[in-house]
Amino acid sequence: MTEIKVLSSAMQKNNEIAERNRALFKRHGLAVLNFISSPGSGKTSILERLGSRFGTSLGVITGDVQTTLDADRLKAAGATALQIETGGTCHLTAAMVEGALGGMDLAKLKVLVIENIGNLVCPSSYDLGELAKVAVLSVTEGDEKPAKYPALFTRASAVILNKVDLLPHVNFDVDRAEADCRKLNRDIRFFRVSCKTGEGFEDLVRYFEGIPRA
Amino acid sequence: MTEIKVLSSAMQKNNEIAERNRALFKRHGLAVLNFISSPGSGKTSILERLGSRFGTSLGVITGDVQTTLDADRLKAAGATALQIETGGTCHLTAAMVEGALGGMDLAKLKVLVIENIGNLVCPSSYDLGELAKVAVLSVTEGDEKPAKYPALFTRASAVILNKVDLLPHVNFDVDRAEADCRKLNRDIRFFRVSCKTGEGFEDLVRYFEGIPRA
Repeated sequence: MTEIKVLSSAMQKNNEIAERNRALFKRHGLAVLNFISSPGSGKTSILERLGSRFGTSLGVITGDVQTTLDADRLKAAGATALQIETGGTCHLTAAMVEGALGGMDLAKLKVLVIENIGNLVCPSSYDLGELAKVAVLSVTEGDEKPAKYPALFTRASAVILNKVDLLPHVNFDVDRAEADCRKLNRDIRFFRVSCKTGEGFEDLVRYFEGIPRA
Repeated sequence: MTEIKVLSSAMQKNNEIAERNRALFKRHGLAVLNFISSPGSGKTSILERLGSRFGTSLGVITGDVQTTLDADRLKAAGATALQIETGGTCHLTAAMVEGALGGMDLAKLKVLVIENIGNLVCPSSYDLGELAKVAVLSVTEGDEKPAKYPALFTRASAVILNKVDLLPHVNFDVDRAEADCRKLNRDIRFFRVSCKTGEGFEDLVRYFEGIPRA
């Protein structure tokens, strides 16, 4: 009972900070997306490709338990990137994002992506102040993932299905995955991309360009 | 401060129950492994192959946030399987495992695998009473994962690198991944397998047959 109370108070505190972040994003007319996926689904690779298209107007705050590998890759691709090392925590919190925002010139950005820790469960419960959650799934993970992780796929506004170049080599029913996503969220956007071949990125770029500003 | 105290007391309670589980496993002379990986790395597929080899003497307690898909697959493959649906929690606890053990005839088992929730972070902190942790990684997730998730790879006694049939289609340096694992844990066992072709399963079967009983 004590534990539940403490957690609920921590969540309330998180939501207050998320609202502060949201107000700040709004002042800057900034579209903010929260990217959530398993480790290795290709969030960073997708953002590298988008970084080479949008350059420094794409900001990425990237969370990792350890190492700054992702921020290094994103900067090399041209994006504005900043790393949060959580040192053990399995999800980003609104306070971690707020702490990082001081290190970024928000006025120079058009879109800010918060690349969450690779984890399909915990991150979906934490509001960071984003406009929308985007779930990234790769075809090597299995087409049953939307059914197995409904909390994320219900809350996501868009799904990016990555590594479609590997479809000939794996058993993955794209239509089943898309249908399962729509069962959870009728209006979900569903993108099919390959970071290797570039397939599907024109659609994704248009989505990024069309996101309504906060 | 209150939150830290509550969590530390929850962890202490978890460890007490883990010790009870361990004593029970010992009474049954049972080797117990805790499988930890990202979602979609292929834990269930590996256990299906081992189930078809070991039959009902292989027990699997499989944890999922939602659905009983995994237990159904494992039973169809011949193993003794039981599902824990956590309904939201991102890791198994010793208490969840203890609760499930009542539903299994441990005397009939030789090896029991606890297939944890797909998550590279949280499950590595919870002792379930197992003999050893086994990390499962697939080649599509990226060879930097051992460096990015040191908590798991330091605590794991063995790594199963899965989907090696996809190596020609992805950028994954197997030697780098193995070397990074050994930097964290010199004595780690490293298996390279493919559930699609069956490659590497002879070694894995020998490992399972040779696990010292608790």
